[in-house]
Amino acid sequence: MQSHEQVELTGHLMDSGLLSRVLNDIRDYGGDYSIDRFDVGRDIGDESYVRITVRAEDHEGLDRLLMRLQTHGANQVHPGEAHLREVEQDGVFPDDFYSTTNLETRVRLDGRWVAVEQPEMDCGLVVTRDDDGRVRVRTVPVSEVRAGNRVVCGASGVKVLPVERPPIQAKGDKVFEFMQSEVSSEKPQALLVRQIAEQMRAVREAGQKVLWVGGPAVVHTGAAPAMVALVEAGYVDVLFGGNAIATHDIEAALFGTSLGVDLSAGRGVEHGHEHHIRAINKIRGCGSIRSAVEQGVLTGGVMHALVTHGKDFVLVGSVRDDGPLPDVHTDVIEGQRAMRAALSDVGFAIMVATMLHSVATGNILPASIPLVCVDINPATVTKLADRGSAQARGIVTDIGLFLEQLALELVPGFAGRR
Amino acid sequence: MQSHEQVELTGHLMDSGLLSRVLNDIRDYGGDYSIDRFDVGRDIGDESYVRITVRAEDHEGLDRLLMRLQTHGANQVHPGEAHLREVEQDGVFPDDFYSTTNLETRVRLDGRWVAVEQPEMDCGLVVTRDDDGRVRVRTVPVSEVRAGNRVVCGASGVKVLPVERPPIQAKGDKVFEFMQSEVSSEKPQALLVRQIAEQMRAVREAGQKVLWVGGPAVVHTGAAPAMVALVEAGYVDVLFGGNAIATHDIEAALFGTSLGVDLSAGRGVEHGHEHHIRAINKIRGCGSIRSAVEQGVLTGGVMHALVTHGKDFVLVGSVRDDGPLPDVHTDVIEGQRAMRAALSDVGFAIMVATMLHSVATGNILPASIPLVCVDINPATVTKLADRGSAQARGIVTDIGLFLEQLALELVPGFAGRR
Amino acid sequence: MQSHEQVELTGHLMDSGLLSRVLNDIRDYGGDYSIDRFDVGRDIGDESYVRITVRAEDHEGLDRLLMRLQTHGANQVHPGEAHLREVEQDGVFPDDFYSTTNLETRVRLDGRWVAVEQPEMDCGLVVTRDDDGRVRVRTVPVSEVRAGNRVVCGASGVKVLPVERPPIQAKGDKVFEFMQSEVSSEKPQALLVRQIAEQMRAVREAGQKVLWVGGPAVVHTGAAPAMVALVEAGYVDVLFGGNAIATHDIEAALFGTSLGVDLSAGRGVEHGHEHHIRAINKIRGCGSIRSAVEQGVLTGGVMHALVTHGKDFVLVGSVRDDGPLPDVHTDVIEGQRAMRAALSDVGFAIMVATMLHSVATGNILPASIPLVCVDINPATVTKLADRGSAQARGIVTDIGLFLEQLALELVPGFAGRR
Amino acid sequence: MQSHEQVELTGHLMDSGLLSRVLNDIRDYGGDYSIDRFDVGRDIGDESYVRITVRAEDHEGLDRLLMRLQTHGANQVHPGEAHLREVEQDGVFPDDFYSTTNLETRVRLDGRWVAVEQPEMDCGLVVTRDDDGRVRVRTVPVSEVRAGNRVVCGASGVKVLPVERPPIQAKGDKVFEFMQSEVSSEKPQALLVRQIAEQMRAVREAGQKVLWVGGPAVVHTGAAPAMVALVEAGYVDVLFGGNAIATHDIEAALFGTSLGVDLSAGRGVEHGHEHHIRAINKIRGCGSIRSAVEQGVLTGGVMHALVTHGKDFVLVGSVRDDGPLPDVHTDVIEGQRAMRAALSDVGFAIMVATMLHSVATGNILPASIPLVCVDINPATVTKLADRGSAQARGIVTDIGLFLEQLALELVPGFAGRR
Repeated sequence: MQSHEQVELTGHLMDSGLLSRVLNDIRDYGGDYSIDRFDVGRDIGDESYVRITVRAEDHEGLDRLLMRLQTHGANQVHPGEAHLREVEQDGVFPDDFYSTTNLETRVRLDGRWVAVEQPEMDCGLVVTRDDDGRVRVRTVPVSEVRAGNRVVCGASGVKVLPVERPPIQAKGDKVFEFMQSEVSSEKPQALLVRQIAEQMRAVREAGQKVLWVGGPAVVHTGAAPAMVALVEAGYVDVLFGGNAIATHDIEAALFGTSLGVDLSAGRGVEHGHEHHIRAINKIRGCGSIRSAVEQGVLTGGVMHALVTHGKDFVLVGSVRDDGPLPDVHTDVIEGQRAMRAALSDVGFAIMVATMLHSVATGNILPASIPLVCVDINPATVTKLADRGSAQARGIVTDIGLFLEQLALELVPGFAGRR
Repeated sequence: MQSHEQVELTGHLMDSGLLSRVLNDIRDYGGDYSIDRFDVGRDIGDESYVRITVRAEDHEGLDRLLMRLQTHGANQVHPGEAHLREVEQDGVFPDDFYSTTNLETRVRLDGRWVAVEQPEMDCGLVVTRDDDGRVRVRTVPVSEVRAGNRVVCGASGVKVLPVERPPIQAKGDKVFEFMQSEVSSEKPQALLVRQIAEQMRAVREAGQKVLWVGGPAVVHTGAAPAMVALVEAGYVDVLFGGNAIATHDIEAALFGTSLGVDLSAGRGVEHGHEHHIRAINKIRGCGSIRSAVEQGVLTGGVMHALVTHGKDFVLVGSVRDDGPLPDVHTDVIEGQRAMRAALSDVGFAIMVATMLHSVATGNILPASIPLVCVDINPATVTKLADRGSAQARGIVTDIGLFLEQLALELVPGFAGRR
Repeated sequence: MQSHEQVELTGHLMDSGLLSRVLNDIRDYGGDYSIDRFDVGRDIGDESYVRITVRAEDHEGLDRLLMRLQTHGANQVHPGEAHLREVEQDGVFPDDFYSTTNLETRVRLDGRWVAVEQPEMDCGLVVTRDDDGRVRVRTVPVSEVRAGNRVVCGASGVKVLPVERPPIQAKGDKVFEFMQSEVSSEKPQALLVRQIAEQMRAVREAGQKVLWVGGPAVVHTGAAPAMVALVEAGYVDVLFGGNAIATHDIEAALFGTSLGVDLSAGRGVEHGHEHHIRAINKIRGCGSIRSAVEQGVLTGGVMHALVTHGKDFVLVGSVRDDGPLPDVHTDVIEGQRAMRAALSDVGFAIMVATMLHSVATGNILPASIPLVCVDINPATVTKLADRGSAQARGIVTDIGLFLEQLALELVPGFAGRR
Repeated sequence: MQSHEQVELTGHLMDSGLLSRVLNDIRDYGGDYSIDRFDVGRDIGDESYVRITVRAEDHEGLDRLLMRLQTHGANQVHPGEAHLREVEQDGVFPDDFYSTTNLETRVRLDGRWVAVEQPEMDCGLVVTRDDDGRVRVRTVPVSEVRAGNRVVCGASGVKVLPVERPPIQAKGDKVFEFMQSEVSSEKPQALLVRQIAEQMRAVREAGQKVLWVGGPAVVHTGAAPAMVALVEAGYVDVLFGGNAIATHDIEAALFGTSLGVDLSAGRGVEHGHEHHIRAINKIRGCGSIRSAVEQGVLTGGVMHALVTHGKDFVLVGSVRDDGPLPDVHTDVIEGQRAMRAALSDVGFAIMVATMLHSVATGNILPASIPLVCVDINPATVTKLADRGSAQARGIVTDIGLFLEQLALELVPGFAGRR
């Protein structure tokens, strides 16, 4: 039996392409719609409002469609109360659990809207009551849910607040804005570097943290000195990465090579594999990267700079790792947990030269945190956006030169140090 | 103080480029050499023999260089006896441990050559004595070594047997041969498909196993039916993969979509994210993929075919995973262990559309197992070869059409089924 | 002084994203707008209508903006009469000439709408009067315009008819439809091949021509036999290409190699450069490709098949050419002329493995001709769409396997021939 | 009947991989060999000498094989005298013409070795006698040969002088050396920029010219100011390019946009197509780029800088061009002629962001001119090397940042100008 529901959406619906994405999704999910009301913004800066009745073949299909439309910020006109259901089995949601977006979210419980803590996509919403009686709703990934947890089911009683990028930008405005359009290497790159530098300064001034996600190319391209300078100057608060970036950085610090590239002479020792496994072994002997620094074994490089400047890093392993280094989380679910724990106060995220850890970070970041992805490979940026990190802005460029220029912008005296 | 040692190398040294790689490595490691003897094969099929004195600045540098040259099959003329040293700390090798190649290896102990079990690169060599007094040498990754283990240290007493590809190939020979040269999409693709089909038949007739390593594009490109046909026809003995290939396969089986691509109509539901998390949740509720098949929940697709035909699969997770499926190893070191355990009797390995799991598999495969890597992205194949899997042959092509054509070659009646 | 004009647009404005593109363009051109009327289609299949007042800083800027909006099918509500101006200098338009889109276009002259002959983008519109007094308007590229020609200037008096892709597609419909969304290799490839085959059959049944644009990879990937089969079966009416595809095809026919790839054995002779220059020299000696066929010098391959089946081909040279073959237009403007002359009755265009000639063909094709671009490199397809060929549908796949599968679909008995 | 000939080769045969390439080519051409003598360099810096008898199935096959081996610097031990044959038909060589390499070449005529003027690959060798009786040999492309010309036929009487890259490089040496190995983005990029800057200074000090080959991305990436600074500082003597780089540069100068990218604000006007056709039209009206500068129409950008600093440029068109600009050679053979005429005194060539014109330039450059190819796409560099420009060194990086850094190295005060 056909089910239907009325949803509404406010914002720059047309010039942002938002409405066309909503209508396309309705079609793609096999649904149907009619537009009940459309107040179109008359002038260029005005917001529009649309109210749409969406129809699906059954209640279950409608629920899914409604959840889907929430990823665009479309909410039910009459959201009703949230339905809660008890989890019966550890690590398994009820069939009709509400699957989250990464947007700011509210849940209607006992006639009141409760804000969801730490928005994250593809999670369930667990409702608890504090000792003082306060109702709390938080996102919980499927692997963390426990029997007895009460989770929101179905689409009713949930409302999201869309993150909207300003459609118009006065020239000369201080506000940070990347090109809306497309991933591209055909953009004035030097300008983009300056914009990112400006954004990082603003974030730091606001007392927020800058999160970096990095791959080994940071070291291969000879950009480690630039990265060290950025750590020292306070523009790297947290680093997410894998075994590779830390190993190559440490290998370069211990042996002057990274996977066999002799970095000072620019000549290549290809696949100098025993260097990297020896570097790992050495740090394993010290117990941890921090211990290696304290014991005077590790005296330079990015990891050294993070340790000596008291910055956080979370390294999560992958199946292709050698070793790994003692600091690496070998359990990926534990690794995700550690990454989530390091997100508080992050105001800007920058991802350089890593597909795996960028997508992983994109998965757990709220949509409200601005995100820049820098890679020489356009596919990495596209992948990130495809996975739902719509706020991601992509720059296709060379990591080595990019980081060097960023350090030139942000670190006084860096030019002289080169 | 300068150290030196004499090494020797036999084979098609010049037309294979082997000698030039050896000499380059000596230079790149900062060493020096003089050629003491060179018996050059006079005619086109003849082998050559070279004896070289290599010199390095100190004993440690020489040891590393000698290990490096072994990756090309160059052994010491006077290898001497292996030196053993006891491991002092769990998970840490002695500083000068012998770092393995993936070649067949012998260790000289008590005046006798002992064959190393299950060659694998970047490992240490642990020597044990069986209850019956038999000396055994096996490869052990650094994370698995335990205090008290005795491991081979330094380069002496170790000999490798190079895998050489035949430099000349009589036309019409049954022997399988890929182009020696380069990764390329500019090769007659249909011919390559036929060569791989032939190889798979030969491996099966020899009673050996075919190992597949697959990424989610197997499903995205609509090739799951071809893959299922290959499983049913007995050409898939083991599958290595991650959470993604299994999830998208199961999602397609349960909902007819894969990451939102409606596979029968060829129309895209982009990012249909709740489908995949629901598919994962459903299987988690069943307890395992096998249980989901037994309970009649999962009734089609590649994973279903593997289960119903009694084939093995090893799924190892990564930090970007949602869920994951209950069968996925979330600890990557455990995952590596499970992959190693599934390698016995493998006579041929084929990797399709996955960088992460291909490199992981390349890391643990002996060089003696032929290896084909198929991907639309040339970088994947190059990466694999760069990591030391020199036996890897690359084909840059479309996975969807490749698997369809492979099934047409190998599975009678597949044409009619399409 | 600010200028303004009212434009209108009808169609599936929202679910096609058309309106958002129009509004974005107004902003990007520095203009301003207000929406005067918006009749939104209530139900999913309904068309919408919008009337917008656009403003720009001066008359010239407004004119350009109006021309720009016409590329989306937005016309002035009160288009007025076209202004004509006489060309003063060969090969130079008046400053304010109307720059064409590739859409079907009408020009208002003497109170009547006159249809433009052979729409092509980036041209001027030349107005002439036939001997019988009939007014004609045709597109003329800047290099072809002559002093004294009368061309349309400014944006008034010009109307375009948008090509709209149907937003909804009943399943099972015979109508050809590619995925609307994106260039992607992650699509069910076998299905796409079948859709193209169906389209080609339909075009042939309708008495229209199939235009192919091909690069040398057609030969390198071993797909020439498939291509020959398609020519013989009547699915290749015209071929556009460069010196390379013809040379490699002829080299393969004369010497069994293509740029050194021995195609029957699949083994590579890299850079067998003298073969290709000899092949060119041989055909130059014959006078033309046709003569080479008639003299019995050229007895196989794609070019031979085109000649013997009476099909057209237009080869246009480039600065990197060796030779070139005698049939190659060395003057690119003459080459463009020859390509334009071969477009009549073309009902479908397919571009395989060539960036240069695909973009060149996209430049001169009317938007009304469906266009498929097949390449292993996503950038080629993206480039084509970026240049304005919005009707282009992209398939990222392997040319060799793609053409083999297409021949299997279209040519009875091709399976047996392989 | 089998034919055979003895060839010899001197140099760093093994560590450069040269010998293995020679032996592979013999096999790939279906030939056979035996090694008659091999004097191997004993120490690391020593040269080796090899003498090989090569055999082929017939005289013609042997001739081709001998020509092929000359591309590696292998000459016949007994080269004999050159055979000359008269050309019978304009634009057609005799069947067995000697096809040139791009190496320095000598031809044996009347018992004396005559040096070939302006080495270029894939040409014939035309022998003439000056009025003063002096015998001259020059390379002539097939399209330029005329009936009556006497050209060298077969492989005898021709000797080449290989260009060898030094296999060993003392650290700190002033000599310019790029990594021998591979095209890669994983290299210390900042170091590479400094090496190129050093090379350019050395070339200028030696009174030689720096040739640039550039694509439109020079403008798109916002690097035009850096390029202008390099022109002004005297590091750009000649520019080869197409219609696109000049058009986008001029468009940016006239309208502040390049293909619709607003370069100062970094915001994109996609496909602002009428701007570029208007820019072309404007310059066509002026008659030439130089006239546009003289008339005060064109007042900035790269082309303006070239004109005002008296530097040469050669623009050669392609089939995808709009317009083109009046300076563009529309006939590609004429364009090649103009490019050849501009090569004298060139001591270094750098190719940035263009496949088409890079390959075209590689085709006509002698192997003795060092060549660097910079592109964000690895395929461009690989293609260049595959076409025979073995001296090409590739850098995979971002053009925008690369040119900015190069200007920082070479142009005093550039940092302040940004």
